[in-house]
Amino acid sequence: MATRKIAIIGAGMMGSALCWPLSDNGHQVNLVGTHLDEQIISSIRSNRLHPKLQRSMPNKVIPYSHTQLAEALQDAEIIVSGVSSFGVNWFADTVGPLFKPGIPVLAVTKGLEDLPNGDLLILPEVINRKLPAHLQNKISLNAIGGPCNAHDLAARCQSGVVYCGKDIATLQMLRQTFATSYYHIRISNDMVGVEACAALKNAYALGVGLGIGMMEQSGPDGLSQGYNPTAALFAQGCLEIQRFLRLMEGKPDHISDLPAPGDLYVTAAGGRTVRLGKLLGQGVSYTEARKRLAGETLESVEIITHAARALPKLAARGLARVEDFPLIMHMNRVINEGLPVNIPWTEMFADHIY
Amino acid sequence: MATRKIAIIGAGMMGSALCWPLSDNGHQVNLVGTHLDEQIISSIRSNRLHPKLQRSMPNKVIPYSHTQLAEALQDAEIIVSGVSSFGVNWFADTVGPLFKPGIPVLAVTKGLEDLPNGDLLILPEVINRKLPAHLQNKISLNAIGGPCNAHDLAARCQSGVVYCGKDIATLQMLRQTFATSYYHIRISNDMVGVEACAALKNAYALGVGLGIGMMEQSGPDGLSQGYNPTAALFAQGCLEIQRFLRLMEGKPDHISDLPAPGDLYVTAAGGRTVRLGKLLGQGVSYTEARKRLAGETLESVEIITHAARALPKLAARGLARVEDFPLIMHMNRVINEGLPVNIPWTEMFADHIY
Repeated sequence: MATRKIAIIGAGMMGSALCWPLSDNGHQVNLVGTHLDEQIISSIRSNRLHPKLQRSMPNKVIPYSHTQLAEALQDAEIIVSGVSSFGVNWFADTVGPLFKPGIPVLAVTKGLEDLPNGDLLILPEVINRKLPAHLQNKISLNAIGGPCNAHDLAARCQSGVVYCGKDIATLQMLRQTFATSYYHIRISNDMVGVEACAALKNAYALGVGLGIGMMEQSGPDGLSQGYNPTAALFAQGCLEIQRFLRLMEGKPDHISDLPAPGDLYVTAAGGRTVRLGKLLGQGVSYTEARKRLAGETLESVEIITHAARALPKLAARGLARVEDFPLIMHMNRVINEGLPVNIPWTEMFADHIY
Repeated sequence: MATRKIAIIGAGMMGSALCWPLSDNGHQVNLVGTHLDEQIISSIRSNRLHPKLQRSMPNKVIPYSHTQLAEALQDAEIIVSGVSSFGVNWFADTVGPLFKPGIPVLAVTKGLEDLPNGDLLILPEVINRKLPAHLQNKISLNAIGGPCNAHDLAARCQSGVVYCGKDIATLQMLRQTFATSYYHIRISNDMVGVEACAALKNAYALGVGLGIGMMEQSGPDGLSQGYNPTAALFAQGCLEIQRFLRLMEGKPDHISDLPAPGDLYVTAAGGRTVRLGKLLGQGVSYTEARKRLAGETLESVEIITHAARALPKLAARGLARVEDFPLIMHMNRVINEGLPVNIPWTEMFADHIY
């Protein structure tokens, strides 16, 4: 296999975890920390340890500070965005102007932005709109969806993901570069579908967490497991994601495997989003739950807020029915209006023929 | 609400659990044990305790022995089949001749039969074909899909299910009869889709169990949770179920919520099917795993066997591609040929564009 030179911008968990398959395939990786990653980069420089992943970085990975961005990007054949959704503006403003036509970008970032008219944008489109005019629509922007926890990938656990983008040949090159015997890649040109799933599964993993929290709160009675409500919330998440895909003109078929239920499953199996959901399901107020999770990046809260703010506007334009999304609207009231959790079972099953 | 008289045939866990919503709605329930349920019926008669559910049966439920079948069915306005897939022949042969046109049947039984030519039949169709000639195609056969653990339903946990059948008016009557503030029902006239999901989720819950077992076997490394492989298997299950639905001419849209991912989630959260999968994933041979689960009803094994036996025949007829179903074919080799578990990752991701 041809070895390539790849620059990963953002040395957080997921961006850094991609160093394992890339290094195993013999590629050279420049890992560039943002201004928030200084400690990570200096740790890797001093003893190779990634302090968040708690693993030694593969030998061929070269750490760079954000002050060395231009140097790190020189000759890069692929640019990876490893920043969180909170870093998208920084990424577009700072890294964007250094993009070159012909050098594809691959983003692990998950998020969804809403425009004032209610239109929902996936992050690659957000990035595209913020690029300097001469680069807009000239850069191949690709993204990763599907169930992949960074710790698991760095442990070389078997993982299956979806790479999406507009051009199949570029996706095939990316697949050939990143895929290993443990990192399996499907490719799709349904960017909206895959990226909407990648974002929305965070919102609905919080919903699954509500079910787990309610179960923990009521306590096992020694007979029932209490998983029926959680399973119904899991299913409702899949259903509402499918409705979002129709609304955003993604292909709802993608709902069927890795991007929606697969990613929802792994996200609900553990992590900060489901921890927040569990606290809320146990009856802890949102304000108190946020205090207990101080310092955590909670993309789910942003995604719920953006989607719930967009839906009434889309409904006013005749493009959506708010009542088709009772779970995310309820989560929004819990998060942004301080209401207690009270799962809208009747509303969820109001549309009872299908 | 009009109170109705309902006969439930089969006093196992799920048939019996339906007594709770029915009793809460004020209906009269005759609960008829099969020849395998004698102990359950005599326990309910002596002290109201259901020995498997470990709960007191609701007061208005009247227990009947299988020898009193005709009496119990007299005046019944709805007949519920609560037998397992292993009791379907008994149910069709013994109860079938007592069916009356105009009295709908509702089955909780999950299963899939294969014909010699490879055609896969859902159980309501199996029952229909075994009815006396004058009743064939004259009985309204309906069925229940979706995530509903019997212990949870008897504990009045919030539960969401799908009732399917050919006639919407009948389904609406059934919904009105069974739905409560905790037992939520959608209705669908896609019987093949809902019933295929209800059966196949058992097969693929075993597949999810393989992932959990492999994770337990390798042990946590203190850093990674090891959930990526399980999530990929969960997603593969959803994908192959969707392919079965296309093959069987169900509506793959049903994949999106309760019948497939929702039911797969609750089945994989616990129970005998996932226990078998975990043992196999830990490296225990199928023969040994069966010994450890002696006495358990393992519908998953039958469903995997029937589906894997059918696929090559359907492929020979040009109706299916065996390579679209690598996970169920592998599970079949583990179960029926004694092969060790070796997840076919390459085959699962061979068809890598979509």
